[in-house]
Amino acid sequence: MDIQWVALDWGTTNLNAYAIGADGRITGQLHNNMGMSQLVSSEFEPVLVEAIGPWLSADRVMPVLACGMVGAHEGWRDAGYSDAPCLPVDRKTTVSVPTDDPRLSVRIVPGVCQRQPEDVMRGEETQIAGYLARNPNFDGVFCLPGTHSKWARVADGKIQNFTTFMTGELFGLLTKQSVLRFSTTSHDWDDGAFLGGVKAAMSDPDRLTAQLFAARPRTLLSGTPNEVLKAHLSGLLIGAEIAALREMWRAGDIVIIGDRENARLYQTALATLDISPQVYDSARAIIDGLRPLAQVSAQTPEPV
Amino acid sequence: MDIQWVALDWGTTNLNAYAIGADGRITGQLHNNMGMSQLVSSEFEPVLVEAIGPWLSADRVMPVLACGMVGAHEGWRDAGYSDAPCLPVDRKTTVSVPTDDPRLSVRIVPGVCQRQPEDVMRGEETQIAGYLARNPNFDGVFCLPGTHSKWARVADGKIQNFTTFMTGELFGLLTKQSVLRFSTTSHDWDDGAFLGGVKAAMSDPDRLTAQLFAARPRTLLSGTPNEVLKAHLSGLLIGAEIAALREMWRAGDIVIIGDRENARLYQTALATLDISPQVYDSARAIIDGLRPLAQVSAQTPEPV
Repeated sequence: MDIQWVALDWGTTNLNAYAIGADGRITGQLHNNMGMSQLVSSEFEPVLVEAIGPWLSADRVMPVLACGMVGAHEGWRDAGYSDAPCLPVDRKTTVSVPTDDPRLSVRIVPGVCQRQPEDVMRGEETQIAGYLARNPNFDGVFCLPGTHSKWARVADGKIQNFTTFMTGELFGLLTKQSVLRFSTTSHDWDDGAFLGGVKAAMSDPDRLTAQLFAARPRTLLSGTPNEVLKAHLSGLLIGAEIAALREMWRAGDIVIIGDRENARLYQTALATLDISPQVYDSARAIIDGLRPLAQVSAQTPEPV
Repeated sequence: MDIQWVALDWGTTNLNAYAIGADGRITGQLHNNMGMSQLVSSEFEPVLVEAIGPWLSADRVMPVLACGMVGAHEGWRDAGYSDAPCLPVDRKTTVSVPTDDPRLSVRIVPGVCQRQPEDVMRGEETQIAGYLARNPNFDGVFCLPGTHSKWARVADGKIQNFTTFMTGELFGLLTKQSVLRFSTTSHDWDDGAFLGGVKAAMSDPDRLTAQLFAARPRTLLSGTPNEVLKAHLSGLLIGAEIAALREMWRAGDIVIIGDRENARLYQTALATLDISPQVYDSARAIIDGLRPLAQVSAQTPEPV
């Protein structure tokens, strides 16, 4: 097994690690729930060594490139932020993390922050860099769905500005913890209801907190099925996100970086505006975003 | 102790009972957390008898008038709904609840529903009836803050239409269960920040889910104090509610029915529009709303 370097997408809840071979392909990967929120600073190295130990060899230093909440203040080491407008990833600003294990050369990518209005990202900047590595002249907008969805305007190879929405976290809270949980238990899905929610939010975006509640009376008064109400709720939240960004998605092409299911939902929602965004897999984006740093690290390994 | 009747505000989480004397004044009251969500149908009577037992006497039947979730499908007895437009409380539609205890004559007020768009209330209709009992010619709008805030347009003595917002429940979820909980722990309060949130939501109502998230980067980037972010969050949610109702609060005078703290927040928010709503205490509203039914019941007690 010829592993050249290791890519880490180390977030709040999960660790995703990829072993990259000489041909640039993924030769191994692992996913566990040892996310930042589970760990104190001193626990990151042993967790990492246990996870990727089989990929390490005694006779060389393995470049390990990481992005995500691993670089937060509460993470392994605070990698700080780059101020937008800025390159999404800049090899000069990555932060080296000293390790006890001499087989490791770990670097963490800083997040990106925006001062006005204040906003932050950690991990998404690396996904954007991954797309730009293959499309250096891209001028447009990235949509990165998730717990905290990000929309980022990119031009001249730089993140110009971005906005975060609580879409994914609100959907989780509303369907699991609020009175709406009794209306959204279904594991099925109704695409028509999702589209109805998108259109309702986009046509009346300032009534969101009332539109959200409507799932409750629709259950009580007309017994609307849960799969309809759950999909409609998702549509309302994604539609509100898109409605808030009219000027942004009019600014250029849109690229969605996300997993298949999230990408599909945002594609469906944007189709109502006759927008056909390109979709780019988020894991691939992470690896493509970290690769240039790995090549540097391989040439000039950290002293250990 | 001369108790003529008993008023019950029996909601999802609490039971509030008031003993009303011959002079119409409150001669006793009790409040506990034996709300509808804690009880199955058969448990309501024993819980009530234990609570108000000291107010009962063997030689007469006590009229007990109740409103709230006690009349929900999952409550003591399903009192159904009146369809808006309708009288908020109509003595002809109250539902009698048979009891084992011969000292009780229990009636429950139906909720009010709206078919298009679908919405429901239970308890608020009685508070509105309480205000109308003293102001029969009122033509305007009621604001009833709470877990699920209600705004109701009233004319000709009837609830014409109403809208529910998840304001209170969202505030609770965001400050206790979301990533924002790390930014909103303070027990202090900043009125200026609250007003800032109200104005931000009203000037940009379609960006709510992005505006909510901003508390997180404001903590990370500028260490904005928690009491500022918590008050700002409350202002955003209440401001979004008011922004969604422009046509409603332009329709006439506004009366806020709520507890002192909620009333103060909505007064402060509405003051930004040069609106000075009247405030009416919610407990008093319940009693005034149930009183006419009690008088009927006293004249024609239910057979027991």
